[in-house]
Order: sequence, then C-alpha cells, then structure tokens
Amino acid sequence: MKVGLMGFGKTGKAVASVILKNEKMKLEWVIRKSEILEQRSVSEFLGENIEDQGRIYSIQKIRISKLLDEHPVDVIIDFSSEEGIHYYGEEAVKRKIKIISAVSHYDNKIIQKLKNYSKKTAVFWSPNITIGVNYLIIATKFLRKIAPDIDMVILEEHFKEKLEVSGTAKVIAENLNIDHTEIKSTRAGGIIGKHEIICGFPFQTVRLTHESIAREAFGNGVVFVAENLEEKTKGFFSFEELLLPYFSDRYN
Amino acid sequence: MKVGLMGFGKTGKAVASVILKNEKMKLEWVIRKSEILEQRSVSEFLGENIEDQGRIYSIQKIRISKLLDEHPVDVIIDFSSEEGIHYYGEEAVKRKIKIISAVSHYDNKIIQKLKNYSKKTAVFWSPNITIGVNYLIIATKFLRKIAPDIDMVILEEHFKEKLEVSGTAKVIAENLNIDHTEIKSTRAGGIIGKHEIICGFPFQTVRLTHESIAREAFGNGVVFVAENLEEKTKGFFSFEELLLPYFSDRYN
Amino acid sequence: MKVGLMGFGKTGKAVASVILKNEKMKLEWVIRKSEILEQRSVSEFLGENIEDQGRIYSIQKIRISKLLDEHPVDVIIDFSSEEGIHYYGEEAVKRKIKIISAVSHYDNKIIQKLKNYSKKTAVFWSPNITIGVNYLIIATKFLRKIAPDIDMVILEEHFKEKLEVSGTAKVIAENLNIDHTEIKSTRAGGIIGKHEIICGFPFQTVRLTHESIAREAFGNGVVFVAENLEEKTKGFFSFEELLLPYFSDRYN
Amino acid sequence: MKVGLMGFGKTGKAVASVILKNEKMKLEWVIRKSEILEQRSVSEFLGENIEDQGRIYSIQKIRISKLLDEHPVDVIIDFSSEEGIHYYGEEAVKRKIKIISAVSHYDNKIIQKLKNYSKKTAVFWSPNITIGVNYLIIATKFLRKIAPDIDMVILEEHFKEKLEVSGTAKVIAENLNIDHTEIKSTRAGGIIGKHEIICGFPFQTVRLTHESIAREAFGNGVVFVAENLEEKTKGFFSFEELLLPYFSDRYN
Repeated sequence: MKVGLMGFGKTGKAVASVILKNEKMKLEWVIRKSEILEQRSVSEFLGENIEDQGRIYSIQKIRISKLLDEHPVDVIIDFSSEEGIHYYGEEAVKRKIKIISAVSHYDNKIIQKLKNYSKKTAVFWSPNITIGVNYLIIATKFLRKIAPDIDMVILEEHFKEKLEVSGTAKVIAENLNIDHTEIKSTRAGGIIGKHEIICGFPFQTVRLTHESIAREAFGNGVVFVAENLEEKTKGFFSFEELLLPYFSDRYN
Repeated sequence: MKVGLMGFGKTGKAVASVILKNEKMKLEWVIRKSEILEQRSVSEFLGENIEDQGRIYSIQKIRISKLLDEHPVDVIIDFSSEEGIHYYGEEAVKRKIKIISAVSHYDNKIIQKLKNYSKKTAVFWSPNITIGVNYLIIATKFLRKIAPDIDMVILEEHFKEKLEVSGTAKVIAENLNIDHTEIKSTRAGGIIGKHEIICGFPFQTVRLTHESIAREAFGNGVVFVAENLEEKTKGFFSFEELLLPYFSDRYN
Repeated sequence: MKVGLMGFGKTGKAVASVILKNEKMKLEWVIRKSEILEQRSVSEFLGENIEDQGRIYSIQKIRISKLLDEHPVDVIIDFSSEEGIHYYGEEAVKRKIKIISAVSHYDNKIIQKLKNYSKKTAVFWSPNITIGVNYLIIATKFLRKIAPDIDMVILEEHFKEKLEVSGTAKVIAENLNIDHTEIKSTRAGGIIGKHEIICGFPFQTVRLTHESIAREAFGNGVVFVAENLEEKTKGFFSFEELLLPYFSDRYN
Repeated sequence: MKVGLMGFGKTGKAVASVILKNEKMKLEWVIRKSEILEQRSVSEFLGENIEDQGRIYSIQKIRISKLLDEHPVDVIIDFSSEEGIHYYGEEAVKRKIKIISAVSHYDNKIIQKLKNYSKKTAVFWSPNITIGVNYLIIATKFLRKIAPDIDMVILEEHFKEKLEVSGTAKVIAENLNIDHTEIKSTRAGGIIGKHEIICGFPFQTVRLTHESIAREAFGNGVVFVAENLEEKTKGFFSFEELLLPYFSDRYN
C-alpha cells in the first residue's frame, strides 16, 4: 500500500515513523506547510535504519496533480488542518485514492464535501484515531445497552498547559449521552493523557481506562484503519463502523 | 415471576434482599441446610419493610415435590453447593421450571446432567453471576480480536484471608487465553474484591477494571439473567450467551 | 480503658463493634437519642460473641452525672451531633475524663468551649477520624514542602446519593492550600468512598489514594487516638498532632 | 554551580537537558565512553536554544586531571557505570568536588571506597534518583510506624521488554521489609514505569503510586540533590537522608 501523508508536526512525524516500520506500507511522500526539510527523505530525517522512503515537500512548492503523477499513492493520510483537504481532495477522488483523515475538527460544509467524495472513493474521518479510545467508546456503549441505569462519569487527566477540556473526552461524552458537566478534568504536571469512564452500578463499579504513552499510537491507529479499509471502494466511515464488526459473534 | 432460592449463606441472603425489592419477582421460598430460621419469613428476617415474602425451609424437613405443590415457582436460583441440584433437579425439569445456578464449581458429571435437563427446560450456569465481571470478559475478548498482539495481564486484589487465586481471575484467564502466570494476586487488609485486565499496546494502555462493593451485585446479576431467560423455554446458557446479543449492532 | 460512647447511628454501631473486640478497651455505655434499644446490651445487640458489654441508654432517660457515678469511664467518644457536647462536657471535665470527638462540624463557640475544657483534660477533635485520610493529608503536606511547585488535584468518588462535595476532600484541600475548584467530585452507583490526591511533577506523577471499605475504619481510628492520648492529661489535639511524632526520625 | 556529567546514554542526555535549563547550574563537560560526538557542545547537540554549554569528551581521550584543570567543577554527576568512579574518584576528592552518583549498583568494595571519599568531600549515592520514588519509600516507612500491622504489596508495571523485576521495586521492598514474593510484576506493551504500594488496613486501603513520564525526572532529582548538598562539605548521603528533614515538624 502506497501512502501519502499530509502534515509533519509532532504527530505527523510519529505517524510517519510507524508507517516506515510497517512492512505492508510504503511512504511515498509527505506534504507540509513549512519549507524547512524540503526534499529531504523522511526515513533519513527520522533516523530510521531502513531503506530510503518518503520525500518531504512543501505545500507551496508542488501541485498535487504533479505529485501524484510522479508518486502515485493508494491512500492519503491527513494529519494537517481543516484546510488540508482543499489541497488534495478533488484530485484524490478523481484518482480513486482513499482518504484517511485524523483532522480534529471540520465544519459542516467540509463534512458535506467529504460525504460527496465518499460516493466515489472510501473516505474515513476520526478526530481521535487511536484504537484504544475508539474501543473504549464502543465497549462502553454496549455496557449502556446492557445496564441502561448505571451512572457514567468521565475523568480525563493531562499536562498542566492543556487549557481546554479534552476533545476526546467530549467525543466520549457525546457518544454515551453523558452530560458535559460529568467530565472531570485534571491538569497536573506532565501527564501525557488519561481517560477513564467510571460506570457505577449499585453494588459494583466498572472502569474503562485509556492511557496514552506516545503519539505513535496514532500511527498504529492509521495502520488499523488502512487495513480495514482495504476492501472498501467507496463510502464514508467512522472508527466505530470499522470496529463494530469485531464485536459481533458472527465473526468469531 | 415466582422464585425459589437454594442457599441462604451470606451471598444467598444478599441475593434474597435484591429479589425482595424487585417488583417483577416474588420470592416464594428459600431452602437451606441449617434448620435455624425454619419457617421464618425472609422479608421479616432481613428487616425489609415490605409485604411478607419467602418462607425458609430446611432441606432436611421438606421434600421438593411437596414444596413445589404448595408453592409453585417459575425459576429456581441456586446459590447452594454442588449437591444442591440433586435435591431439586429432576422435579424442576418435570415441571419445566427454569434453573439459574451460580454454584462456583460442578464436576463434569453434573455438567452433563445439567445439559440433559436443558433439553427440556432453560438451564443457566455461571460461576460468577455479576454483570460487571462477565461484561469485562466479553469486552476484552473483542479487544483481543481487534488487536491480537497486545499483552494481557490480570491483577486481582482481595482481603488477606482469601488464600487461593481468585476463581474469577482464572475464568477471565481461560476465556482470554492468558497464561495463569499472568494473574497477579494481591492479598491485603479488607479489600472486598478487584479485578483489572491490563491490555498493553506499544504506545497506549487500556485497562478494564471491576470493583466489588457488596454481594448484592450477585442479586442484580440474577435479575438480569432471569429477565433475559424469560423467553427461552429450553437450552443451556452461559452468561456470555445472554450478553452477546447486546454487543451486536443488530440490536442498536 | 473504660469507654462511653455518644451516638449509635450506623457509624456509632460500627465504632462500638470495633471497641468491643479491642482487648484494652471496655465499652461501659452508649448514649443515644432514640429510646429504642433502651437498656439493651451492645454486645448482644450487635451479635458479638463476647462477654456482655455496654448498656444502651437514651439521652432523655438518664442524667450524665448518675450515669458516670454508676458507670465511670476514662474516655468519652462522641459520634453524635454538634449538641452532644452539651450533655456530657462539663461533667467530663469535672471528672477529668478524656474527650474524643468525631463530630463532623462545630461552630466557633463550641470549639472555644472545647479549648477551655482542654485546659483541664485531654480533648481531641477530628471531623474525619480515620488513620488513612489523616495520614494522606500529612504525607502530602511533606511532599509539598519537598516540591513546592507541583500541581495538586483532588479526586473524590462517592455513591450517587451523596449530593454535596465530600467534607473530607474539603479538609484535604484546606490543609494543602488547594483551591476548591481543584476538587473533582464523581457520583456514581454505590461507590463507598475514594479520595485521591494527584501530585503532578513535570516528568513523574505521584498519587496518594484512600479507599474506604467500611465504617469500622472510624473505630480503628478511635482506638489509635485513644492509645496516643493515653499519656496526655490535658491539651487540645488534632489528628495531625498525634500523627506528627511518627514522621520524625527521632522516633526511628 | 559548575557541573561535570559522567555518562551520556539515554538517561545521561535527559539529565543534561534538565541541567542546561537550570539557572543555578552550568554544565561544564560530559565524559562518555564512545568517541562519537567528541568535542561537540551538549546544548547544540540536544538542540536547546541556549548559550553554548558543555563540551563532550571521550573517556579514552582525556585525563581527568587535565579536564579539571581546564574546566573545574563543583560537583560530578555520575550516570555512567560501576567503573566510572575509578576515572574521577581520587581526583574529585583531592579537589573537594562533590560526588552525586546514580549508578544502579556498586559492589561492596566500591561502596567502601565511596565512604572513604566521604570523609573529605560530600558523596551522595542513590540507585533511583527521582524525588517521587524516594518520597514514596519514606512516606510509606512512616505509615508502617503508624500502623505496624497493615499488609503491604508492591505492584510494578513496565514495558514488555524489561525482563527482570524492577530494581526500584526491590529497593522499596527492602526499605519496607516487604518480602520479595510480594512484588507483583506486570510486563505489557510500552508502559513506561509504574510502582504502587498497596497498604491494606482491615476497613480501608491506602495506595501510594509513582508513575514515570520521562527520564528527565532523573534530572530534576539531581537538581534537588545538588541543592540539598550545597551546605554539606563532607559525609555520605542517601536520598533518604536528604529528604528526612522535610518530614520533620521542626522545619515547618
């Protein structure tokens, strides 16, 4: 699977390092805003001891059509920003390249655009692209079905500098119909990231907890998504839709 | 739903107190080994401020056929011991009374007998009849399917006096193909009971935790099982079989 | 050590059961508001299989001077309410009986009164009389001295019905100069009681956690306090003052 | 305070980065085994945006006396190996340079040597030089004094590849007289490092937990030790000895 990557910030770099190590994937190029690192090789830049892979381009310096002519890909992975899609969207659809976006927020107009794209190619979007968090959401949804009356509270802990309530916590809350006042945010020191869903029964408590260790978790999420999109040719997918089949006894 | 209860130790009493408060259930009788409390009323004995319910009998003093003639039930709930089934089994099958057993261990001969019974009536058996623990097992099975390579370790904590490894931890281990050396047992003070499954990914950690608060959790488990057996007329059921349908998107 | 107990609600009963089992203590009497149980024996009522101990009296039926003439005690333990002290205070001082109060709140006038009493007898007051919580407060105070810049957040979890913020959490916050907005309260199901102080360093996190199992913990706190007051003849003591000497290397 | 650093592996680098950012410290040099990076500047190598600091030398290329003549220091920090002390020990003592060693193990002969050195200069050694872990040990020692009968169990969690039981867990166990069988080791995925001491009372549980986020925690430990050694001119110190004064009310 040939891969193009949009975005090369801290998370983009971590995702690139995971793709580089994955045997089924080949990183063809990275597009980033900054012109620093222009034309350098990702594998060399990240110091990975592997065959040379992934040329870095600045979005200002190369048109997407030229890039795709010279370096065709099967899937574009987007860790850039809300605007990234404008650069590659139309061309991706034209060439039936799959889109995997982990952009944290899109306004409705862009979501509509993605849905239109999805009539012609497979489009995936998840604001949190880790297996762990998405598993937590679905697993807890099922617990809610089993025991509709239990109380649910979300604890989230992050480093002191993170000001706002965790976006992941909000997504969990919305998926589980938990009131936002039931998100309890702790900001202390250098905590990387922890989310815990407390499920209170009268005589027992169930806790589902996710602890982040490193941004590379997003890379593993991308690999999982790419593998599970392999046989899809079109359609608009969330992480939930890709995970749900695993929860069915039909697949045992 | 008319209910008969086998066993009136600490757990049996806690289960009885939950049944007494459940509006859809009526406790008809309790059978216990000891002759103490003979003929007393369960609701009065437990000090529940409700309509008089549940006469207590000693297994030595009354035959099951006489008991069922005078106080017919729809379901027999068994918190006694491995031998309990010999007292009521045949008669339950004859009268198509459902059997819900939470006995912690049966040898193969008895399991075979239960399976024979299940050709004529609905038979349920689970050595741990809490929703929480059984949910944990199934939810983690699905995580294993999603991410077959993650490491799994089971932590269990109980009060100092509990000598052996927790039976629940062993059941979790067997269900998840976790080696028994990966069960880490803590014995300290008066800890009621905690089970945690640590699921280690390279860059993230997922934890599923169950904390016991009181034995009444078994009562709520019984209520859940009884409700979910309501439309079954025969068959041999585990907790997993009753929970699985909730995990399917077909039921959303 | 002969003991009188004020208050016989849920906590009073749990405290009584611990005192009954303590070999160095003898429960002489219990005073309670209600007239139910009047004149019954505590050991018999609680079903403890020990020598008959502790007569139960209603506060309306017996004067403290008569009670103390007939059943003298070395220490009065108060788990009643703010008003309890008016019943026994003057008489306790006159007879140099020690006072151990676990009443959750006193207004300033009463605190002043207690301080006056403490010029003549040993008076102890702590709104949370468990070893665990008080240890947590002091241990964390020392951590604050060691690392003044760390971030501290308090998590507290209790059963759904507990409406207000935990008083213990507030006491922890005041002792550690933590803003009350940094108390994160979770209310879910039947959680008995959990307090966690998260201490966030830039590159490590320290957590001090206290989990309640049963009200008997208050009884063990009382025993600890009584033993540590043994050689005090006067003075006003908090739990902190009794614990501090254990934290000194001089006592190693 | 002028500082020399022995060792420039992963931990050495993290410690260097903390020293570079500390305003009271100046990193004069780093000594390492490898000849790679010879003569490069630490601040430049680590990409820290500060005044040029810290020249890197290989142990093969420069004698300690020449190094100290040209770049005198007040303290030598040792994150190398058991042999490191042979390189700088004698010369440090002669020049009354303080020694702060975080080497994980020394045999008795070397410990004796360090003690001899400590008659002439201040020598500090701790196999785990984080504030958090050392605080945990002392705080729990005091809890043991307060409640000698409680049960203590140590949980430690680390990444899959860490084969042996955590050395820190062993140090905790030895300090608290906990049997080594009561260390429960979990190896799963990429867990950075977690130590938890469970203190079980009959009716309550206290947990002291330390979670590692990054190796820089060792750097902050070094800074703390250096500051607390400032007024010591000789003597052999452990982390415990430096922390103990903070636990005394005399210092309030």
